[in-house]
Amino acid sequence: MLKFNPLVADLPAPPIPQIGAWARAYDGAQGPLLDMSQAAPGFAPPAALLTALGQAAASPKAAGYGPIAGELALRSVYAAEICAIYGADIGAQNIQITAGCNQAFVACALALLAPGETMLMTNPYYFNHQSTLAMLGLQVDLVPSDAAYGFLPDLEALEQAIRPGVRALALVSPNNPTGAIYPPDLLLAIFHLCRRKRIWLILDETYRDFLPEGHGAPHLLLRQPGWQNHLIGLYSFSKSCCIPGHRLGAITAGVHALAQIEKVMDNLQICAPRAAQIALAAVLPDLKPWQEENRREIARRSVAMRQALDALEDWEIVSIGAYFAYVRHPYPDIASSFVAEKLGRIGGVLTVAGDVFGAVQEAYLRFAFANAPVSAIETLEDRLSRFSLPGI
Amino acid sequence: MLKFNPLVADLPAPPIPQIGAWARAYDGAQGPLLDMSQAAPGFAPPAALLTALGQAAASPKAAGYGPIAGELALRSVYAAEICAIYGADIGAQNIQITAGCNQAFVACALALLAPGETMLMTNPYYFNHQSTLAMLGLQVDLVPSDAAYGFLPDLEALEQAIRPGVRALALVSPNNPTGAIYPPDLLLAIFHLCRRKRIWLILDETYRDFLPEGHGAPHLLLRQPGWQNHLIGLYSFSKSCCIPGHRLGAITAGVHALAQIEKVMDNLQICAPRAAQIALAAVLPDLKPWQEENRREIARRSVAMRQALDALEDWEIVSIGAYFAYVRHPYPDIASSFVAEKLGRIGGVLTVAGDVFGAVQEAYLRFAFANAPVSAIETLEDRLSRFSLPGI
Repeated sequence: MLKFNPLVADLPAPPIPQIGAWARAYDGAQGPLLDMSQAAPGFAPPAALLTALGQAAASPKAAGYGPIAGELALRSVYAAEICAIYGADIGAQNIQITAGCNQAFVACALALLAPGETMLMTNPYYFNHQSTLAMLGLQVDLVPSDAAYGFLPDLEALEQAIRPGVRALALVSPNNPTGAIYPPDLLLAIFHLCRRKRIWLILDETYRDFLPEGHGAPHLLLRQPGWQNHLIGLYSFSKSCCIPGHRLGAITAGVHALAQIEKVMDNLQICAPRAAQIALAAVLPDLKPWQEENRREIARRSVAMRQALDALEDWEIVSIGAYFAYVRHPYPDIASSFVAEKLGRIGGVLTVAGDVFGAVQEAYLRFAFANAPVSAIETLEDRLSRFSLPGI
Repeated sequence: MLKFNPLVADLPAPPIPQIGAWARAYDGAQGPLLDMSQAAPGFAPPAALLTALGQAAASPKAAGYGPIAGELALRSVYAAEICAIYGADIGAQNIQITAGCNQAFVACALALLAPGETMLMTNPYYFNHQSTLAMLGLQVDLVPSDAAYGFLPDLEALEQAIRPGVRALALVSPNNPTGAIYPPDLLLAIFHLCRRKRIWLILDETYRDFLPEGHGAPHLLLRQPGWQNHLIGLYSFSKSCCIPGHRLGAITAGVHALAQIEKVMDNLQICAPRAAQIALAAVLPDLKPWQEENRREIARRSVAMRQALDALEDWEIVSIGAYFAYVRHPYPDIASSFVAEKLGRIGGVLTVAGDVFGAVQEAYLRFAFANAPVSAIETLEDRLSRFSLPGI
């Protein structure tokens, strides 16, 4: 057998498919399988979007190649949305459409970092960010943002971590896995720090449509003069439109950064799939009421999650936010990867082990509460209280 | 302005959009614009496929995440097609679905080559292969396969080029840009050479459905014992199904190679877009008659291309094959990039300059004759004979 690239060979197998194996092993004894693992919207996309998707996919036009940057109509509609949410003044020229937010992150990493350079991230982190950078031969430095830090990065720790070789800081807010919502003031201070230190700030806002009612703009960074030279925003249509299978994400950046990102996108896959772009452009503004109801429903799930876990003595929510709860399990001496597997295989509750998100996360499990209806979350108290690790 | 990754910053802008600027500059004086630049099927997908695409995209099922490897149904149907075409004995476990063939190449390059290692390719090459490897910090060595070599790689030259650090040889047959169809015997000899030298052979067969009538199997490599440890096949559904906008390609490989490629795919974009996979799986076997008629139509275009160019004294087809003709233009002292631009802007005929495909290609233009109907190709004789470079 010939060798493979050791940077890839050394990566563990992707975590989500392994969780699928736990699901298949579960015998149903504790009730229906409760999947709170992958962040996968638990309901269908709005009917108007499904209709538009069907129409676009059936059209000969969508079958042809599209522009590398994405469909102008979607870029325009999305830019208008950005302007409305952030009070920004941008246009289609600031948007690159990608095939999902993972690809957006890959494209940014390649456009910004030369081999051997360093991306700064938080610990815990979104696991695909870490594995992507490792695969590309890029270095990762981590600043803690765990329980001891209130699940937010500390400004002083960040400043110390920005050493020579660090080219960018990648943050996720609302956070994956902790759910933590970074306050606008903190994000602004971090933006100024990055500008002073002359590094890029990459801000992944995949879950920003699930902020609590009345939160206001997620941040003011797009209103800062010269943001184009320091900030790149990442987004996914997967969550708020419930269309992860159609693979659509977006990058918001200055035109100089996008010129580089466009070269990367051309190499990666010419253009994002067209039909979903055409469909979304046609209906996105009309989806607002549906998305707002979606947001409220997920807020109700958040309340149900709190109630279910508050009723348990030995399980504790340490952080909860837009889409995820980060939960301390009752086995302080046992790795979360073991607990998550047994909870899945025996208890029929699928979560992602904290271990997957970085070092010293053995105490935690990530619950994607947004996946499950309130009625299912309400069974968690009973499900978790009846669960115990075999032999413990 | 902060620096970008110099490996990306140093890449030229993607060539195809530049050709679009020539098209917009053309004033129509010489007749309708004739686009023979990007390999873009010049007609709509079959009606049954469009219907299936519409149905799948409108279904809630297709909106959810799919398996990283691709839909099992499509992998099974495509594996059966591989078995029929190549006399191979493979199954779904040997197939990874990708979002187009560019992504398939990226995934293979990352899975096989560590940073600094070398991919061997031919000169001329498909430009995105070269730019992808440059972007990833991988080295490229070239063996000539131009006019002096009958547009085929020379076995002895290949053997000499496989030096330490070379981890894989990437070939394209039928070739892009020359159209050259590599004979099965040559491919078998190259496969044995790669095995002896312990390097991977990556064979991109994006255009294999357009081989001439009666050609038989494109090669016998998938019938060689142990092929799984040395060969990776790449394919695109874009051309023979006329669906480049839906971004679907495939990798054929052994299970050990696919285990590594799957990790890369998960990082790149979790999974290929689902709706088109579901649709294609449902109708692919039924598309054979349509694809066969498509193949015949493109063969007729090839004949028309030959006739049009044979009638011209100062333009010469030096190579023609499944989808492309490689043509010597009448200006031996002028770079093909200049000739192609003027032919586009003034003559209204869009081609890709040989320069884009590698060094010492100044004499050539690539015509994607498969894009244009016979009636349009028949006008080429007149269009090219009336064209002259300004000031020459």
